[in-house]
Amino acid sequence: MKTRDRILDISLTLFNQEGEAALSAVDIANALDMSPGNLYYHFKGKEPIIEALFGRFEDEMAIILNGTHGAVESIEDNWVFVYIVLEEIYDFRFFYRNVGELVGQYPALAKRFRKVLAMKRRAIDSVLSVLEQRNMMSIDKRLRAALIDQLVSTLTFWLSFDVVEGTDRSGPRLIHDTVLRFMLQIVPYMGADGQAVLERMLERHRQMVSA
Amino acid sequence: MKTRDRILDISLTLFNQEGEAALSAVDIANALDMSPGNLYYHFKGKEPIIEALFGRFEDEMAIILNGTHGAVESIEDNWVFVYIVLEEIYDFRFFYRNVGELVGQYPALAKRFRKVLAMKRRAIDSVLSVLEQRNMMSIDKRLRAALIDQLVSTLTFWLSFDVVEGTDRSGPRLIHDTVLRFMLQIVPYMGADGQAVLERMLERHRQMVSA
Repeated sequence: MKTRDRILDISLTLFNQEGEAALSAVDIANALDMSPGNLYYHFKGKEPIIEALFGRFEDEMAIILNGTHGAVESIEDNWVFVYIVLEEIYDFRFFYRNVGELVGQYPALAKRFRKVLAMKRRAIDSVLSVLEQRNMMSIDKRLRAALIDQLVSTLTFWLSFDVVEGTDRSGPRLIHDTVLRFMLQIVPYMGADGQAVLERMLERHRQMVSA
Repeated sequence: MKTRDRILDISLTLFNQEGEAALSAVDIANALDMSPGNLYYHFKGKEPIIEALFGRFEDEMAIILNGTHGAVESIEDNWVFVYIVLEEIYDFRFFYRNVGELVGQYPALAKRFRKVLAMKRRAIDSVLSVLEQRNMMSIDKRLRAALIDQLVSTLTFWLSFDVVEGTDRSGPRLIHDTVLRFMLQIVPYMGADGQAVLERMLERHRQMVSA
């Protein structure tokens, strides 16, 4: 394994555990049993490490979000899709717990974060289009834009919401709860089928969290 | 005006302008043309200043959120109510822009922040109950809990969302847009009246932002 990758792996683990603000480049070097000078040879400080980690995150998100067009056709497909997106975000959760702060602190990151937001927006738009084409949902155009906003917001602030609420759920439990929260926002636009879909979603959630 | 209040007023202005992390107690003393020792006589550092400001915020929110029971009966009442809540939050916006960070950094604040969340939750619950009693909306019990969650999340992360999106809207514009975003989430549960209510809300929003 390349030293560069080892540095990134350990950094991600530490940032997720202790938060970005709590750690210096020296802490990262110490955790790797590496001299600060050797770390510096690979990364000129904490910021390039964070940017390289964001690069990994971007690549993963692009694969997941751009790969879906047309493939997500049923409620169950959607459930799995949202689960995968959240799981990927969870792997890089330090970016999301204090997203406002990080974006303020690293302007280069802000731009790239907005691109990820735009990717999320397009993926949700495309999934809703499929559901509409299959007559699985119907929604006023103005409400549709607001719904997409809400869904993007859910995908972006679920980890901050959890920090603020302090519920102390496990990662998988938090992800399952958030998938449900995401999906329930679509139910009111499913017309007469909505009630049955709701029951299926709640049943699925029960199975997932008791598994 | 008491020195204590002057310190808090200036601190609030500075925190809102530059963010909490960017300022020290010495910066605050400088802005007041006061010696750090004199500031220290009133507040033993930055944390007690932040706690005192949160005390002000709590008091204002309690007055607004606990005062509504039964008073919010029409869509227009609701619009005004949400506007007032957001305006109050905007006055203390530094607490909300990086809410995850502040809660992590000041554990005493986290507890009190959760109490404000609980107040928001109760106020929304009570407003929805009034709308239900007047047959202005009807919602499945399970979706109701999820909707309240979403609405609390909107009231909590609208400022972080704006930071992340970087839209650079004026305060009043951002507040009007957020009221609309909040209200549109209730529309799908208004049945046949929903379409007319939606038109009224959009018209109201247009008037507000062009005023």
